[in-house]
Amino acid sequence: MTTPTSDVDVIRDAIAAIREPDPVAREAARALQSRLTKPAGSLGRLEDLHAFAAGVLRDPAPTLDRRVIVVAAADHGVAADGVSAYPRDVTAQMLQNFLAGGAAVNVLAARAGADVRIVDAGVLRETAGSAVIRARLRPGTDNMTLGPAMPRTEAETLIARGIALARDECSRGARAIGLGDMGIGNTTAAAAITAVLTGTPPRMTAGRGTGIDDPAFAAKIAAIERALAVNEPDALDPIGVAAKVGGCEIAFLAGVAVGAAASGAIVVLDGYPTTAAARIAAALAPACVEYMLASHLSAEPGHRIALDHLGLRPVLDLGLRLGEGTGAALAMTILDAALRIPREMATFDSAGVSRSGRERQPEV
Amino acid sequence: MTTPTSDVDVIRDAIAAIREPDPVAREAARALQSRLTKPAGSLGRLEDLHAFAAGVLRDPAPTLDRRVIVVAAADHGVAADGVSAYPRDVTAQMLQNFLAGGAAVNVLAARAGADVRIVDAGVLRETAGSAVIRARLRPGTDNMTLGPAMPRTEAETLIARGIALARDECSRGARAIGLGDMGIGNTTAAAAITAVLTGTPPRMTAGRGTGIDDPAFAAKIAAIERALAVNEPDALDPIGVAAKVGGCEIAFLAGVAVGAAASGAIVVLDGYPTTAAARIAAALAPACVEYMLASHLSAEPGHRIALDHLGLRPVLDLGLRLGEGTGAALAMTILDAALRIPREMATFDSAGVSRSGRERQPEV
Repeated sequence: MTTPTSDVDVIRDAIAAIREPDPVAREAARALQSRLTKPAGSLGRLEDLHAFAAGVLRDPAPTLDRRVIVVAAADHGVAADGVSAYPRDVTAQMLQNFLAGGAAVNVLAARAGADVRIVDAGVLRETAGSAVIRARLRPGTDNMTLGPAMPRTEAETLIARGIALARDECSRGARAIGLGDMGIGNTTAAAAITAVLTGTPPRMTAGRGTGIDDPAFAAKIAAIERALAVNEPDALDPIGVAAKVGGCEIAFLAGVAVGAAASGAIVVLDGYPTTAAARIAAALAPACVEYMLASHLSAEPGHRIALDHLGLRPVLDLGLRLGEGTGAALAMTILDAALRIPREMATFDSAGVSRSGRERQPEV
Repeated sequence: MTTPTSDVDVIRDAIAAIREPDPVAREAARALQSRLTKPAGSLGRLEDLHAFAAGVLRDPAPTLDRRVIVVAAADHGVAADGVSAYPRDVTAQMLQNFLAGGAAVNVLAARAGADVRIVDAGVLRETAGSAVIRARLRPGTDNMTLGPAMPRTEAETLIARGIALARDECSRGARAIGLGDMGIGNTTAAAAITAVLTGTPPRMTAGRGTGIDDPAFAAKIAAIERALAVNEPDALDPIGVAAKVGGCEIAFLAGVAVGAAASGAIVVLDGYPTTAAARIAAALAPACVEYMLASHLSAEPGHRIALDHLGLRPVLDLGLRLGEGTGAALAMTILDAALRIPREMATFDSAGVSRSGRERQPEV
């Protein structure tokens, strides 16, 4: 084995390390479900989640043990075009809020038993202190309506740093990594990426984000159309897409998804920006998708388009549109419950419960 | 205050005790949400759950404290007509399984921090031991295709006993009571009740329950049609409906719903049989509905009809069709998370985070 010498090597090695989930463990999980004291299939999606996790974690009755939500924050040059209801300062302020434990994701991650890792992937104003993970190369993207959001080499570095963080977390026991995002303007980048990678017009992939009015919504669609015209991103070059119309946090999170899959962990998506990151990861390494769990359906209309294109069905539909990994944290509580069922429930035999006529027929 | 002298008095007193939820606490909850460090409305359904719970619990930032899932089990005479995939013995076997902690609801209730109370509301074979709450009057219903499932006075007693249990649990701190059911044949009773109380034909309210084949499904619909023709239940007489085409556990759970609302607690529905019980409770006391939370949408097609008729929108849609209170337990974890948000999140002011332009405008 050679030591990777460049970011591209790190990315290439991670992609090569992604295996197919284990079909034997997945089938064993299904068989285990059929012995539990309940009608076959009656726990619906919980049974599917168990089988999915069994395949990914290569264990018929896996536990989540350590779980982590990686919240990556960055600023967006396109915010200068008035695409958000909030000033750009809010990205840095919210990063401080994450570090102080006062944001929604802190509350929901605590409920889910998940550690929160806060990453500065390129926030306008740098944050002091040792609790923040510094992946930053620049104080946010350039305005993508005028040229590329960042140089290609920087997108590569951010992806490689995301991979390194995920692999490090997994080496310390993380079995599920939730993706969280923060960045004023980042649903604009998500809509641009989704437009390119799913071949959908921006007016369908753009939404109202944090709650913009009609003129700001029109400005957002126009900004995306301009960014695509100026940069001509190529759907077959996902790193180029990330560099041209992406965000620093989105590129980093794409790396986290690839790295988690390479390390054999579940990747829990959140809302629209994280799903755009997942879409980039899937374009880099299609095998990634088998490791992904769609936590929820965002109120952003483009989110459904992005999830459909990945072939993923969300666990929750709660009208969330906050990001930060809040939906990922909620879905982790459901996933954790699903994984406790096969470990803690009685079987028909152990409990002395009769099976149905159909199920009692001898199996071959 | 006079001491109730009959079951009918207990029911009447409970209905009279149900107040409107507190609109002041509900509005205060909305105002509190608007100060938290997130865009207005961005936590979607979680914010609605908080406002709902604030109104019911008469507290702008309520906690669930003690929560309980009441699992009521009973047998059904109509099971003799081959409407279920399981033998009737399974009801008693599962009751033992609940007591031993080996059923799905035990696992999920533990995750939700909920106590489980197991009630024998009329199981064919009586269960020994002190852990079971005995509300039973008879070893299950009579076959409703031949006459009333039980005498009217017994339905009254079961409802009154459900009320008494709920009021007792609330007096010991329960702020949310989940309804759980177990009874081979009880989706047949649920479909009959839903047909009567929503004016929908049985072929639309009946489903495949634990997983029956086509002939059993045809037998199930025919049994319900026969039960309605023989008993002529009147939608304006909900106790009569419970007696004629109900189940002992369904009547008991209708009482639990009325009693919880009378004591000012949240009533968390589960699947189809518990929603039929809720429908009876709502027919007895329409004000009950304001206390109800629909936890999930069951795979049983009639469940949506029953929920729509109550005007309730389920929190989860996970294809569950197990009952026992499993969906109620899962929704309690979401509700608990929703209630921690206003208590644990920072406000814009406390965290020094800027508001959006729109939100910074002075409010009157």
